[in-house]
Amino acid sequence: MSGGRFISFEGIDGSGKSTQARRLAETLRARGLSVDLTREPGGSEGAEEIRRLVLTGDPGRWSAETELLLFTAARRDHMERRILPALARGETVITDRFADSTRVYQGTTRGALRDLVDRLHELMIGREPDLTLIFDMDPAAALARTMTPDRAGSEDRFEGFGLDFQTRLRAGFLEIAAAEPARCRVIDATGDPGQVAARVLDALGQVPA
Amino acid sequence: MSGGRFISFEGIDGSGKSTQARRLAETLRARGLSVDLTREPGGSEGAEEIRRLVLTGDPGRWSAETELLLFTAARRDHMERRILPALARGETVITDRFADSTRVYQGTTRGALRDLVDRLHELMIGREPDLTLIFDMDPAAALARTMTPDRAGSEDRFEGFGLDFQTRLRAGFLEIAAAEPARCRVIDATGDPGQVAARVLDALGQVPA
Repeated sequence: MSGGRFISFEGIDGSGKSTQARRLAETLRARGLSVDLTREPGGSEGAEEIRRLVLTGDPGRWSAETELLLFTAARRDHMERRILPALARGETVITDRFADSTRVYQGTTRGALRDLVDRLHELMIGREPDLTLIFDMDPAAALARTMTPDRAGSEDRFEGFGLDFQTRLRAGFLEIAAAEPARCRVIDATGDPGQVAARVLDALGQVPA
Repeated sequence: MSGGRFISFEGIDGSGKSTQARRLAETLRARGLSVDLTREPGGSEGAEEIRRLVLTGDPGRWSAETELLLFTAARRDHMERRILPALARGETVITDRFADSTRVYQGTTRGALRDLVDRLHELMIGREPDLTLIFDMDPAAALARTMTPDRAGSEDRFEGFGLDFQTRLRAGFLEIAAAEPARCRVIDATGDPGQVAARVLDALGQVPA
């Protein structure tokens, strides 16, 4: 794999994508690549400040549209200050969540915003990852994973919505994968982490370690 | 004048628009109208938080595009939480700055953003004031007004740019007035405040007090 590749990890909570993103970063670094592992919302100093503004306080304090603008501002900052410079230096950028999360979370859950999400992305962000890995598994099993004690204090308030919500999110991610086969690969997220990591490397066109 | 009218006050710093906005609000209230006097950036609780995020810290910490997204998020919140509800109650809303300030400040000063400003406004805000009063005067005289001691500590960092900058802003406001004559009225902002207030009432179709 050449340097300068931009890879996003997407999927429902509990699908293991964050663990796999860290694991892939370590594997690629062990092979001598420069890797910048980041995440959204956040990922740059300004974007982290916007993240705090959005995610603290009453969940209903921002409308869906205002929240969308704030997340887009954070993404713009993240792109300008971190992702694009790293790619320009030839680094591999792995981001835990990117625009597909906005499409699915905002588009699925907060009214019929999907068209607005797409138009705002086109206007203000404009770039997609070179490769998006969508971690897919049964939402009931994924939800069970999120119930471990160490995640009970997570600030991710989307986790509070339950199984029906997760099921709709999963369908949203699979729709994106089907609509953009050149960019997206669906990763079977079941099984032990080593098995999933092998599937990730396979999707990247790598020989599993 | 019927209730529910949405009026914005625009112009360069030192043009006296904030003083005149307060004065008009008092005049209309004395005549029995319900008036909500507000300002941008800010004007609602969430928008004020976004304002603080944008205006504190290093002025170069946000790119022009990220700043535009943040100001648009603030405006969306201001519209949803304050302006539209007040108009729906039949109140007159007077706002000290609105979208024209973004068009002129961002469009004039931070690269060729004017088209992006317009497209983002159309996508995410969509509404213009019923009437916009553009306070116009010689920028050198306006600048001299801003140099009074009580404004020396203003957080408005746009004031720091000097005469050439103010001259370009003035031209930007006058261009908007020329392009949208049905919505905009240019107010001669010279003379004493009583004279200017009479011009404001005249522009509103009121008999001067």
